[in-house]
Amino acid sequence: MRNLLSAADLDRDEATAILDTAARMHGIQTREVKKLPPLRGRTIVNLFFEDSTRTRSSFEIAGKWLSADVINVSAKGSSVSKGESLRDTALTVAAMGVDALVVRHHASGAVQRLASWVDCVVVNAGDGTHEHPTQALLDAYTLRSRLGSLDERHVLIVGDITHSRVARSNVLLLTTLGARVTLVAPPTLLPSGVGTWPCNVGWDLDEALSGKAFGDVDAVMMLRVQRERMNGGYFPNEREYAIGYGLSPARLDLLPEHAPVLHPGPMNRGLEISSLAADGPHSVVLDQVQAGVSVRMAVLFRLLAGAGEEVSV
Amino acid sequence: MRNLLSAADLDRDEATAILDTAARMHGIQTREVKKLPPLRGRTIVNLFFEDSTRTRSSFEIAGKWLSADVINVSAKGSSVSKGESLRDTALTVAAMGVDALVVRHHASGAVQRLASWVDCVVVNAGDGTHEHPTQALLDAYTLRSRLGSLDERHVLIVGDITHSRVARSNVLLLTTLGARVTLVAPPTLLPSGVGTWPCNVGWDLDEALSGKAFGDVDAVMMLRVQRERMNGGYFPNEREYAIGYGLSPARLDLLPEHAPVLHPGPMNRGLEISSLAADGPHSVVLDQVQAGVSVRMAVLFRLLAGAGEEVSV
Amino acid sequence: MRNLLSAADLDRDEATAILDTAARMHGIQTREVKKLPPLRGRTIVNLFFEDSTRTRSSFEIAGKWLSADVINVSAKGSSVSKGESLRDTALTVAAMGVDALVVRHHASGAVQRLASWVDCVVVNAGDGTHEHPTQALLDAYTLRSRLGSLDERHVLIVGDITHSRVARSNVLLLTTLGARVTLVAPPTLLPSGVGTWPCNVGWDLDEALSGKAFGDVDAVMMLRVQRERMNGGYFPNEREYAIGYGLSPARLDLLPEHAPVLHPGPMNRGLEISSLAADGPHSVVLDQVQAGVSVRMAVLFRLLAGAGEEVSV
Repeated sequence: MRNLLSAADLDRDEATAILDTAARMHGIQTREVKKLPPLRGRTIVNLFFEDSTRTRSSFEIAGKWLSADVINVSAKGSSVSKGESLRDTALTVAAMGVDALVVRHHASGAVQRLASWVDCVVVNAGDGTHEHPTQALLDAYTLRSRLGSLDERHVLIVGDITHSRVARSNVLLLTTLGARVTLVAPPTLLPSGVGTWPCNVGWDLDEALSGKAFGDVDAVMMLRVQRERMNGGYFPNEREYAIGYGLSPARLDLLPEHAPVLHPGPMNRGLEISSLAADGPHSVVLDQVQAGVSVRMAVLFRLLAGAGEEVSV
Repeated sequence: MRNLLSAADLDRDEATAILDTAARMHGIQTREVKKLPPLRGRTIVNLFFEDSTRTRSSFEIAGKWLSADVINVSAKGSSVSKGESLRDTALTVAAMGVDALVVRHHASGAVQRLASWVDCVVVNAGDGTHEHPTQALLDAYTLRSRLGSLDERHVLIVGDITHSRVARSNVLLLTTLGARVTLVAPPTLLPSGVGTWPCNVGWDLDEALSGKAFGDVDAVMMLRVQRERMNGGYFPNEREYAIGYGLSPARLDLLPEHAPVLHPGPMNRGLEISSLAADGPHSVVLDQVQAGVSVRMAVLFRLLAGAGEEVSV
Repeated sequence: MRNLLSAADLDRDEATAILDTAARMHGIQTREVKKLPPLRGRTIVNLFFEDSTRTRSSFEIAGKWLSADVINVSAKGSSVSKGESLRDTALTVAAMGVDALVVRHHASGAVQRLASWVDCVVVNAGDGTHEHPTQALLDAYTLRSRLGSLDERHVLIVGDITHSRVARSNVLLLTTLGARVTLVAPPTLLPSGVGTWPCNVGWDLDEALSGKAFGDVDAVMMLRVQRERMNGGYFPNEREYAIGYGLSPARLDLLPEHAPVLHPGPMNRGLEISSLAADGPHSVVLDQVQAGVSVRMAVLFRLLAGAGEEVSV
């Protein structure tokens, strides 16, 4: 593995190896001294063409805990706005002697293109509505921790599938890891080609949650409603969306006791998720955040550490 | 002490201990190698919901000189603007494995609320018009350095008391440390409950400076006029304010020779402070800035270093 | 040398010494562990009153590879916008205990003024249309690497000379290092005093490139057209500019084989430079970027490392 651009880059062995490395990294979070030596003297640039405090901070912490130098480059209002091409921006940053670029871009496919131009390691930190592989890894990590294994587990992903890189990466990774995925969304928020994806598709959240439509549920992942979609004619209004696709207290009761509730954040409480679901015993939302740092440490370690180097946490 | 949220959290012993630690830290600033080991592997997040280059930089330098990892998170234009609640933002950042959050927020009381939700250390770096305890500590440090002790010293605080977290925290801390405080402000800029505060209140700056109204003065702290107040009807215009409450050269002559002039910055020269006052021998404005780093090192050290750990500078 | 404010600060010996140090630093970029100890415990603040992702990142990487603490202070939207004077901002940042300020400012001369107020080292990272000495150093480094020496080499600088700090610093430094410089620009983009500069001046790019006008050419540096100039009446429109002063494929053929093409970036492809020129075998644009880090390491090292300290890369 040279880059991490798509969840499709990972076969079952590679994905499992990352999760296993992440599990070894996880212990560091509860220690006083959160510092491991393997990436000392490596330089990681967070090259963000789109704001994301949460993802950027998580990668920054992951890099620093591994002793790398981390440089944040917000490509908004920089050379980009001066008319520089994506290729020139990428080549320029890489030419400074960078070992890895962690890239977030608002255009689907932009990170893959960028990776084809530079020699250094590239990690996709989210590109348009396309992919967000480290999010899928942290979700898989969280699910595996809760459910023991992903094999034959049935995961519902609920909400705006069309515009969700989280959904796309999760369908790829979770099925690679042996899970069964069902997408539940209003028909207006299902992408046109979804019939060819390796998963079930449904419209009725109550039926799906109860297990009647697609079998018993082991976990449910609620997607964020992006407010910029709300005026796009995708659904009538917030209230209707919440009624049809929000994880209300009543719907929470349909879930088996063992089934965790995931959300990639930031949450719209009262819209796609009720506070009872977000804060209750099913919720693993903060475990996901915590797993995010471990998984990103694992990815950076595997992509950047010298061959044969081992983590000794 | 688990957090530093308010100057009221500090009793005389605790405040004195911080100032004493700061004094030991102070030596580092004149050294070639400004680096101490005690917070190695600790992670500090500067979570700023409001811009403040000066305070943020001071905390960042303080953390780095103690060998901590420091992550800057500007919560403007981030998840917050995506509708995330303050609680969710705080819990998310804390869940990444952070040891301390240094928080600046535009709403009074927000930092206290935030501290009640997270398990990590929280330092208030200014909340609305409420409190700014490290500013009070650096002021106290500067005064103590100049005056030898704060005991029975008489400090004037002049300007917009109503909207000043600096004034509020200083009244609390300076009186805790044995000083006597007099507030001088136009009646429109005195908060309604000021009668219950442990200090004198006056309107006439000349009388106060001369010692006629409230006794001899040992120090005077000029508050910044925030330009956004100017159109709020709090005072007629800049010129009238300068005439009534600016530290003009003439007023500077009323001050005893030993009395320092403080200002939290940024200064509006010609408005609340004349250049003669800002740059002359009374001014300790840059000493305050320097003390800011020492005091923040001391606070972070005391809150984050292992029990029994000592500073050996 | 105490500061680096202007290319004019450097005599031939000093400039050569910096380039030689940079050459020793250069090796670090291809290593796994890019970390040298000499500036450990030194604090460098990048104080940028104007955005520049590229220059800021280059200085940040240079500082971190030398083990310094690097703090980024964007002075836009900070105390400056609160009406603080440049002098107070500079004194405040310096008072925090900073060893060096790397300053970018939109006003010509601002960095020199600033340096007169503070005690710490100041490096000019570009001030208005005035100077950008580290850019000239990286250009000289790149030229020397390609051409063996700068002595008697003939360098064309093409484009908007009036508004270019890059041109100004390069004329000074390249001539100091023994090169011969010819400026080529539309008459509207030549500064009024250019007749007194130590270089030739021409209007016809084809004649200059072919060597007919000013002798054989050893290198050509294309300047960026700043889009904000386009509506200033300096030239009719983009197309006319490209026809008259763009490095088209046809013009590239006029260049001797050994002559490199430089551009400070970001490039406007199709305007001042064609893609064939930007990406072809003459182009050293990415070498310039790479040299930027080495040269800035050299400058920071020479200004901040203890006397007698040597680089052992």
